[in-house]
This record gives sequence, C-alpha cells and structure tokens, in this order.
Amino acid sequence: MSDFFTVVHAQRACRDFAPTGLDDDVIARVLDAATFAPSAENRQPWVFVVVRDAARRAQLHDLAQRAWDAGGRDFAAGRLSAGLLADVEHGIAGGGYRAAPVVIVVAADTKRCHPATIPASIFPAVQNLCLAAQASGLGSALTTITTTFAAELATLVDLPDTVVAQAVVPLGYPARPLGPPRREGFAGHTHRDRFGVPW
Amino acid sequence: MSDFFTVVHAQRACRDFAPTGLDDDVIARVLDAATFAPSAENRQPWVFVVVRDAARRAQLHDLAQRAWDAGGRDFAAGRLSAGLLADVEHGIAGGGYRAAPVVIVVAADTKRCHPATIPASIFPAVQNLCLAAQASGLGSALTTITTTFAAELATLVDLPDTVVAQAVVPLGYPARPLGPPRREGFAGHTHRDRFGVPW
Repeated sequence: MSDFFTVVHAQRACRDFAPTGLDDDVIARVLDAATFAPSAENRQPWVFVVVRDAARRAQLHDLAQRAWDAGGRDFAAGRLSAGLLADVEHGIAGGGYRAAPVVIVVAADTKRCHPATIPASIFPAVQNLCLAAQASGLGSALTTITTTFAAELATLVDLPDTVVAQAVVPLGYPARPLGPPRREGFAGHTHRDRFGVPW
Repeated sequence: MSDFFTVVHAQRACRDFAPTGLDDDVIARVLDAATFAPSAENRQPWVFVVVRDAARRAQLHDLAQRAWDAGGRDFAAGRLSAGLLADVEHGIAGGGYRAAPVVIVVAADTKRCHPATIPASIFPAVQNLCLAAQASGLGSALTTITTTFAAELATLVDLPDTVVAQAVVPLGYPARPLGPPRREGFAGHTHRDRFGVPW
C-alpha cells in the first residue's frame, strides 16, 4: 500500500536507471493505472508501445540524442540552471536513459478522438503512468523531445499515420534513490476569483 | 491515508455536486498536489484561478453552456453513448456543475515556458489536481469546452494575454457517491516493441 500524497510529493524525473529488468506484471500494473485517467468523451485514445528490444531502444535513444544535438541543448542551455542542464544532458546524452530496460512510447489514436482533445486526453494518462511507477518503486521521466522528430519516431515503432506519438517514457528501477522534487509553493501560482488577486 | 491505486482506480468525472462549501485548506492541499507534477524544464508554468464568487462562477457556467449550445452538443451527440451524453448534458446545461462551490481555471504562463511544451506541462498538474480531489473525498471534472471561447474566458477571470487557459475544473463534494469508471482494459491499447504486435 502506497499513500497517495506521499507518492505525489515524491515524484521526480529519473535520469539514471539500474539495468535490472522489469516483469510484465509490473509494466501491466503501471499501464492499467494509466488507463484510469480521464479523456475527452471517455474516448480512451491512448496507445502504448512498450519497447524492451535492446536494438530498438538504442534507436529511440539515438533519435532523442539527435533532437538534443539539433537544438534541444542550445535551447535549454540559456534557460536551465547548470545543475538541471547537467541532469538532462546526462539523461539524454550521457547514457542515463539508455540503461532503462523499458521505454514506453505513448501515442494518440486520432481515429478515436478529435485532434483538439489530444493533450487533455493523453497527458493525464502519462501522469498516471509516472505516478504508478513511483508507487511501484520505479523511476520514470516524462520526455517529449523525441516527438520533435515525429516521422522518424513513427517509423521506429511502426506507428500508422493515424497514431501520433506524444511522449516517450523510460521506465526502470532508479540507479540510486532520488531526492525530493524542487517546487515553488502553490500560493505564488494561485489567484482568488480573478487573476491578480493573491491567494 | 489514501491508497494510491485505490484513488487512481476510483477517479471519475463528477457532474453533480453538493452545494457544501470548501475550506481554503482543502483547496490548498489539492493545489499543492497539482504543483508536484512534472513540467518541461521544471518551469512550473501553471496558473490557478480559484473562483468562489457566485456571480463569476455563474458567468463561467454560462460560457460553458454557450460553447455547448454553439456546437459542443451537436458534436458530442453523434459520438457519445446516450448515457454519457445525458451525463455531460446534465453537467454543463442541467445545473450539475453550477452547484460546485469552487471552479478552478487552470492556465499556462507563456512567459515561463515554450508554447510547444504547454500540454505536457499543464495536463499532468490538472491530473494531479483531480486525483488529489478524489483522495480528499471531493469530486472534480477535467473540462476544456469553455476554452474554445478563449477570449471571453480570459476576460471573465482577467487573464493577461500571456496567460492562456487550458482547463476548467469544478470542485466540490459529490451530490451522491459515484460508481466505478468505465474503462477498456489496457492490453487492447498496448503493443510490444512495435505497433501491431499484441501485448
């Protein structure tokens, strides 16, 4: 049993994985939780491609690294703290994500949903997936950089034209315990009745 | 203490609220949980406008109803089961959402994040918010229909041009206990290594 708020408060992007494999039933529990997220019209347009195959995983990581080298790093370098930039660099380019035994490509089936509803119908499921990973002692990371090379990503996992990748989530046991997430307090982001009135 | 997986498996859109008010500390707990979601570059671009004022809440519901009447209902009518259509109709047009004592407009601060990263940076927080509501005995619903009238919605809660509404979440105690959510099994949505290979 995992306390809900303890799980929520501990979630943090994992960028360094142990090579320990994952049983199907652990993955199933995480994906089952993902499907309990809401979706517009309850259309459940989520598609999960669970990649274990080492060669295909390497191709996914190569593609992420190409996206990082093609502009991701430069874009991030002007925006992130040195520590966070080093963490992200390590995950994408330093082998951190590559050690994860499983990579899940999460996509939207556009035959099941109106394109405008994709974000509100897919990212809640991705978040459930990441929280369920946390509750199961696993690490995960919500990444989207690989989706900027959409055609190559689709080819890598054989997505048909009607299925559009939204996120790529490495999954596995953390190489080491993760510290607490760094967050600003909610009150600074919250307004009362109208924008500009402090909470 | 709420078990994580029990909360996840019980989440369901609430479309009929009791008028019972909510204390600030209950709202704070839910919003605090929202801010522990991941966001691209840890930018935390979420903005929450917590609307309690009855007149402003009524205006938000009027706007949702206008969006429903302007095309939402016709679009949904050809797609939803009769039961789900009646539920949604009741929530938007039948007064179900109007009884909620609090409506939270969730927006993205585009000065804090690249526009392309908004969905992956906002909807995980919205999902945390809805799950935390469930864990607290509250009902909620992830709605986006009001955002189709973006300019009017921004005016209603004084959003500046740089802050873009993404979702509107009614929050309160359910008028009656909700049944379990209806979901297809995850396996039918899951593929092994590449699309088309069954889990």
